[in-house]
Amino acid sequence: MSGQNVLVVGGAGFIGSHTAKLLSKQGYEPVVYDNLSTGHLASVRWGTFVEGDILDTQRLIEVVEDHDPIAVIHFAASAYVGESVEHPAKYYRNNVGGTQSLLEACRFAGARNVIFSSSCATYGVPDQLPIREGEAQRPINPYGRTKLIAEQMLADYSVAYELRYVALRYFNASGADIDGEIGETHDPETHLIPRALMAAAGSIDFLEIYGNDYDTPDGTCIRDYIHVADLARAHVLAVEHLVNGGNNLAVNLGTGHGTSIKEILDAIRRLTGHNVPVEMRARRAGDPPVLYADPALAAEKLGFQALYSDLDTIIRTAAPFFGLEVRT
Amino acid sequence: MSGQNVLVVGGAGFIGSHTAKLLSKQGYEPVVYDNLSTGHLASVRWGTFVEGDILDTQRLIEVVEDHDPIAVIHFAASAYVGESVEHPAKYYRNNVGGTQSLLEACRFAGARNVIFSSSCATYGVPDQLPIREGEAQRPINPYGRTKLIAEQMLADYSVAYELRYVALRYFNASGADIDGEIGETHDPETHLIPRALMAAAGSIDFLEIYGNDYDTPDGTCIRDYIHVADLARAHVLAVEHLVNGGNNLAVNLGTGHGTSIKEILDAIRRLTGHNVPVEMRARRAGDPPVLYADPALAAEKLGFQALYSDLDTIIRTAAPFFGLEVRT
Repeated sequence: MSGQNVLVVGGAGFIGSHTAKLLSKQGYEPVVYDNLSTGHLASVRWGTFVEGDILDTQRLIEVVEDHDPIAVIHFAASAYVGESVEHPAKYYRNNVGGTQSLLEACRFAGARNVIFSSSCATYGVPDQLPIREGEAQRPINPYGRTKLIAEQMLADYSVAYELRYVALRYFNASGADIDGEIGETHDPETHLIPRALMAAAGSIDFLEIYGNDYDTPDGTCIRDYIHVADLARAHVLAVEHLVNGGNNLAVNLGTGHGTSIKEILDAIRRLTGHNVPVEMRARRAGDPPVLYADPALAAEKLGFQALYSDLDTIIRTAAPFFGLEVRT
Repeated sequence: MSGQNVLVVGGAGFIGSHTAKLLSKQGYEPVVYDNLSTGHLASVRWGTFVEGDILDTQRLIEVVEDHDPIAVIHFAASAYVGESVEHPAKYYRNNVGGTQSLLEACRFAGARNVIFSSSCATYGVPDQLPIREGEAQRPINPYGRTKLIAEQMLADYSVAYELRYVALRYFNASGADIDGEIGETHDPETHLIPRALMAAAGSIDFLEIYGNDYDTPDGTCIRDYIHVADLARAHVLAVEHLVNGGNNLAVNLGTGHGTSIKEILDAIRRLTGHNVPVEMRARRAGDPPVLYADPALAAEKLGFQALYSDLDTIIRTAAPFFGLEVRT
């Protein structure tokens, strides 16, 4: 397997860079393609880097022809829910148009194995918990819609053009590199755990909490947090699945259990000694009280188990990137 | 109202050209924009013609700026279900990318009223009949998916960019110009009534019928056929709705009743004196036995009633374009 190329589109981003590192550790050669619009060149430390935009189909064709990858992992997307409501044009262009541009390059240059970063946002507000892959996909914002459209495009391309794919529906990506090499940095930062750590460290004044009167044990929303090291490993498993001739898949990547916001704040206090100052806000439209995955299908089809996604490991790995020491 | 421009993108096609004619008759100035890939220059007889592609956003911006239309009607799409399965790339590019290209031009050049040709194909196999607009939209082929994606894009653009729209979900478009000026010509011809008339006229050997053992009174599939003159009128009503400040709408355009294939063949024989030679084939996957619209919402919101969609008028207007005389 050693030395085989894997094209990692969007590989300078949070999950992409962790995946590139793991691919490299496991003997693959990551070829990172990124326009650095939100990714960081400092996170590209493994394999080959090519600067380019996902909408540049011709450049992607050249990269696929030059590197002949055994699989293509597609991380490149705009990923802010709020921004997607305010500027949907960007999301249709980057996430829908971008996916088609990449798939066209794969089609013309003969890359047949595609792994796609999908999202639990494609489910919207589910009828049942835990969320299974057969649940109706009814996204409630443009971000979720564009992720679902990309899944449908993959399915339609697969029927017509012999492409095979794995769509990985992430729940809440969190944590940072176990070795301390790469962390989570978004600008603006909108994710809960990073913002909570920033508030604990004093780099922002407070964490906003949108509703504490939900029908949950402590009143705050419950989500399924999965460590980025686990997400990265799932991508490597998906590469192996496709390279070994596996069928198309769309699977959840979650842990199967939920964590409330209050539990996160308690863990940060316990592990760092810092309180997280908070401000209460009104509920946001479309925020369900509880979301968590049924992770059984990923276990069955990919042999995937979350290993690093307990709350303490998530906080312990993430905290140093926000200037917080963790108690041992 | 006289002399106000309406941009008709895809206005050289079947429904587009009928709509351009009616707009012209009602005192509007149609500006037809078409790449003539499937449309016919011979059908562009009213208003101004601009040759151009819907993917050419810059050209569309210039056209919108030059003509300052009170509304934009978007007919330009690839529209063969079978082809969409075999070549989905074309459908995502033309129907999804094309719609975004047009909406971007509208956004940049300040056109705010958009009327979109949607389809009953966005519903897939409905849970209930008649099909109401609130029915779940679960398309079963790439054509239907790309039409639904365009509807969602319109809704998302409307929230973000102050655009307003009417999505018209056509059932089975049929018939031809009441005055005999423009008919239905597709290459290849895949629509039932044109193919039946071609078989009756001897220009093809036979009509294929996919299944005659459905659970319907005569065993053949039942669909809701709506005359192109009625469709054209609905578009003019939609222009008026938006120009008068009406809200976003997505409405069915159908008659509310269904017609079986056998009823169509009987009518052709009765009206032209020619038998339609047929060959029976196996059912096609995803062909529901019965589909027809609930037309109440279009009546309520647009004041729309089908006036020309009885079977005899459909056959009488279409037959002459296939070289068949109609008995009086």
